[in-house]
Amino acid sequence: MDATLKTPRTTHRRNPSRGSHERAVIDAILDEGLVAHVGLAVEGRPFVLPMVFARVGDALFLHGARASRLLGASAQGAELCVTVTVLDGLVLARSAFHHSMNYRAVMVFGRGAEVLDPARKRLAFDALVDRIAKGRSRQARPASDHELAATTVVELAIDEASAKVREGGPKDDAGDVAWPCWAGHVPLRLTPGTPIPAPDLPLQLTREAPSLR
Amino acid sequence: MDATLKTPRTTHRRNPSRGSHERAVIDAILDEGLVAHVGLAVEGRPFVLPMVFARVGDALFLHGARASRLLGASAQGAELCVTVTVLDGLVLARSAFHHSMNYRAVMVFGRGAEVLDPARKRLAFDALVDRIAKGRSRQARPASDHELAATTVVELAIDEASAKVREGGPKDDAGDVAWPCWAGHVPLRLTPGTPIPAPDLPLQLTREAPSLR
Repeated sequence: MDATLKTPRTTHRRNPSRGSHERAVIDAILDEGLVAHVGLAVEGRPFVLPMVFARVGDALFLHGARASRLLGASAQGAELCVTVTVLDGLVLARSAFHHSMNYRAVMVFGRGAEVLDPARKRLAFDALVDRIAKGRSRQARPASDHELAATTVVELAIDEASAKVREGGPKDDAGDVAWPCWAGHVPLRLTPGTPIPAPDLPLQLTREAPSLR
Repeated sequence: MDATLKTPRTTHRRNPSRGSHERAVIDAILDEGLVAHVGLAVEGRPFVLPMVFARVGDALFLHGARASRLLGASAQGAELCVTVTVLDGLVLARSAFHHSMNYRAVMVFGRGAEVLDPARKRLAFDALVDRIAKGRSRQARPASDHELAATTVVELAIDEASAKVREGGPKDDAGDVAWPCWAGHVPLRLTPGTPIPAPDLPLQLTREAPSLR
């Protein structure tokens, strides 16, 4: 356990056996999840926005249009809670009470800061594009200075974070094992379908299917 | 557009063409998504928790252990932002700038209230179990009064809500169409794998695969 990651906010009160503060566990979840749910409070009221994100080392990057009000608040140092959840399955117990879902979730807390250094901003931008498809930042037309200027990139250090994981089958009470219904779990996986080329893609490029992560 | 759903908080400032306040659009997303990201502010600091949820008519139900601190705050009338996101695909443009994801997301704002009426609490509980697998609340051993008492159920009215949807292929600038890389989109879908029976499931029940939603 990395002591710097554990604070009162990241201490697991419920089911502590499902919790972790290990960076390897946290990083694996952050690197698999595709959407972050970014929470911030504006005048005491919560907002939760789904966003593309990327991890590079100890930093989480978020981005959006410069005009975005909530991203602007994040860039100006608002407290953030960034939660990334990977749903792994459905858990069917004999008892209604013990039904559950298998998941891996990470919560990262901290204050956002706008990335102003041009080289770091481009690094973040490339990492965000590479979340869509591996290596994609080297194939696509790079962002122009104008496009970078129109984009706000927010950085959040991963130094107060925790993971929570539920896995495996149902945990029925001993008295319920004879209840006559199916029990077990059903894995769930986010699966890519057949790539759909843009209508104006030249014929010779249609067969170059993207390499997904 | 349902005027009661539209408030300053749910007015789309970015890409308003992607926004909707139609209940049919909102309900379809809520009924497909399996995980809600529930945001609340505690002493001005945001928390975002992944939770199982269910919609019944105009109500969203959340639940958790009675001892949960954040659920307790929700039950006591804290302002909530409940965001449900269904990820539909990856969008690969020619330009790095226009890379995106296809998604359908709903944000519901309001104050939570604990469900105390026993009949309504059981209705909510059944609806939450049925999110794991359709009709499951009629197969599983029903919750005992003790189990219901150990569970906090929070209700949130769907009267301030909005949806945002991005779909289809990339929207490249005209000047980028000749850029020599694949462009298009890749659908993503949460797919169930083979059900894994509990190790102590009697042999005659192992073949009764669960009917997923």
